[in-house]
Amino acid sequence: MTAELTVNQDRLWQSLMDMGQIGALPGGGCCRTALSFEDKRGRDLFVGWCKDAGCTVSIDQAGNIYARRRGRKNSRPAVATGSHLDTQPHGGKFDGIYGVLAGLEVVRSLNDAGVETAAPIDVIVWTNEEGVRFSPPLAGSSVFAGICDIETLHDSETTDGTTVLQDLQSIGYLGPEQAGGRKLQCFVEAHIEQGPILEAEGKTIGIVTRIQGIRWLRVTLTGQDAHAGTTPMNRRKDALLGAANMISEINAIAIAEDQETRLTVGRLDVEPNSGATVPGRVFFNCDLRHPESATLNRLDEKMEHAMRNIADTFGLQITIDRPINVAPLEFAKELIDTIREAADTLGYANMDMLSGAGHDAMNVAHRVPSAMIFVPCKDGISHNEAESATPADLAAGAHTLLRTLVAQADIAP
Amino acid sequence: MTAELTVNQDRLWQSLMDMGQIGALPGGGCCRTALSFEDKRGRDLFVGWCKDAGCTVSIDQAGNIYARRRGRKNSRPAVATGSHLDTQPHGGKFDGIYGVLAGLEVVRSLNDAGVETAAPIDVIVWTNEEGVRFSPPLAGSSVFAGICDIETLHDSETTDGTTVLQDLQSIGYLGPEQAGGRKLQCFVEAHIEQGPILEAEGKTIGIVTRIQGIRWLRVTLTGQDAHAGTTPMNRRKDALLGAANMISEINAIAIAEDQETRLTVGRLDVEPNSGATVPGRVFFNCDLRHPESATLNRLDEKMEHAMRNIADTFGLQITIDRPINVAPLEFAKELIDTIREAADTLGYANMDMLSGAGHDAMNVAHRVPSAMIFVPCKDGISHNEAESATPADLAAGAHTLLRTLVAQADIAP
Repeated sequence: MTAELTVNQDRLWQSLMDMGQIGALPGGGCCRTALSFEDKRGRDLFVGWCKDAGCTVSIDQAGNIYARRRGRKNSRPAVATGSHLDTQPHGGKFDGIYGVLAGLEVVRSLNDAGVETAAPIDVIVWTNEEGVRFSPPLAGSSVFAGICDIETLHDSETTDGTTVLQDLQSIGYLGPEQAGGRKLQCFVEAHIEQGPILEAEGKTIGIVTRIQGIRWLRVTLTGQDAHAGTTPMNRRKDALLGAANMISEINAIAIAEDQETRLTVGRLDVEPNSGATVPGRVFFNCDLRHPESATLNRLDEKMEHAMRNIADTFGLQITIDRPINVAPLEFAKELIDTIREAADTLGYANMDMLSGAGHDAMNVAHRVPSAMIFVPCKDGISHNEAESATPADLAAGAHTLLRTLVAQADIAP
Repeated sequence: MTAELTVNQDRLWQSLMDMGQIGALPGGGCCRTALSFEDKRGRDLFVGWCKDAGCTVSIDQAGNIYARRRGRKNSRPAVATGSHLDTQPHGGKFDGIYGVLAGLEVVRSLNDAGVETAAPIDVIVWTNEEGVRFSPPLAGSSVFAGICDIETLHDSETTDGTTVLQDLQSIGYLGPEQAGGRKLQCFVEAHIEQGPILEAEGKTIGIVTRIQGIRWLRVTLTGQDAHAGTTPMNRRKDALLGAANMISEINAIAIAEDQETRLTVGRLDVEPNSGATVPGRVFFNCDLRHPESATLNRLDEKMEHAMRNIADTFGLQITIDRPINVAPLEFAKELIDTIREAADTLGYANMDMLSGAGHDAMNVAHRVPSAMIFVPCKDGISHNEAESATPADLAAGAHTLLRTLVAQADIAP
């Protein structure tokens, strides 16, 4: 590998800013939800850039985009990178987009240096990572990994009342390639951290060794609606008071466990939700995450036990179901080592870390060796128009990605 | 007063059942929201019954209906009774309607017995007690009492986008009489208890001596939206976790005070209310009631202090405002004594009690001596299709009302 093989920080930044113009919001963020017209425009811009860079572009039946830079041995499975171009409704300019455009920057940099790799390099855009307009989230990579079948995705209904199949057709991204048919040697996804750790630790590169497991406990409490003025407090079955006690208690359980535990009650709905009525029904969702399966199981059990006790105390019926239950995942050791070596060689302060969020790489890892490279984002803020990262950190991540992909592409098959 | 002067239990029950057919719901309840077409049909039915009973019917500018049974001295202010015909969207057949039709039963019974009272007797239907389609609730009696001016009511917008003035005109209940212009000697409102106390105590008649004070504390907490997977629990500003702790704590404060205290958090809204996002904003409403002003003030202060402390602990900004602050009210002693004497004479087990709910009589009491008669309702359930009361209890209340009104009408002016 030549010493001159580097990335162009300004070009990468400019591409991010150009993409950020599509679906731009007043607060500096983007709304480019999956398979919307804005998503189509973002895809078109990316495909144009890839063709200009000499790539061959293929689309699969899930709308995933594969931009291939050919190598010396094109029969070899590609060394792949990428992420997603879709955003939250009030999303930022970096979540997902960075991973795609870092991949493009790798291709452009290889072109600049006139380097030909042994294996081809694919830059992939996965469809609907965010899951805003339709389910499932991480849709394109789920189909690629065989976790979701293509018919289920095609039949999925969007919030606009269309189906995914209709939307893929109407934006021109229903491709002929079988989703999951493509052979890859490995997949490395670059991403902003979406958390505060790298910034706090003063590191430039996060080497993601694991993605924590995630479990959702969906709790429904049924008490009895009652008049706020006439019903003595000791004769109530107040579902919200029960929920409040549960939320306090399960948070205490989670905090007592260890610093890696994440418990979030982010959604809570009250019925009838009227100021003068004791609420007879409350629904809330517990998002529980931990890197160890055994700990997830133990916390789940403790939380359920505590919530059932509180339900009894308050005279409430309780039902709990678990619509999401994803086991923790370890990324591929050989890729992690390659990334660490690249970051060390380039002199970027780095650390091994856990991903708190789910990512497409988590799905792809079920098919091929995968890993992730994180770069810092300001104040750990993401899923927010205020999402921000520095051009230097973004370039460092792309540079680390470049060396990682080249090393992987040039190893003996 | 003759020993034969009694009410007709079957007729009263049949009138309640007939009125319950208008806006009838599948579960046995009614939807007859104020100034709706169903409300018009209910009003028309009542007016027809009153005219059949020989009453003179007047309508005021607030749509309040006054059905007058003439007395020997018609220059005297009327002895008045009544309540409301409008319902909650999923209301019952008794809340409000009973007080109106008990008044009609008094008129019919006096007719049957050929009794002429000294003062005239008015049966009044107050407009929009429930406040479902427009504000304020207790609208007709508020205007009558001078608490709300007629222009404000007329300009009030309904949930259907019309104004109250338009609705009054379109259903034919915009009357010429000045709202509040009518002189009354007193006002006695019969009502189902809407609580469980009479049933639990085995009493037939509740003599309402007081209506408790009510105060709403509207609390808004602002923290910071954050990613559920990436944000360590000790770096969060979780508005819902703060709210949960506050709800537990202020309930403990209320329960520790005394058995008369009622605290209800009935409404709570979370933003962005997404399973995987730490909630950055929560709004909730505290409905605090107590018969003593000093206790209300002390509880309010304790609750605010506790909530501000918890907000500090969780790094949340807190704002509290008080959109409702109604002082406790004592009903007129001479009326209370008259009701008690009537119930005792008739042999109905009775008790003095507090009203936990607000009622039109609470407003009318600002203008003329007022009181209320409660009868039991099944399991204390109200604002619910399942609302239920027995024909015998309803007749007992009407009989007590009859004797109370006659006694008041025949005292020296």
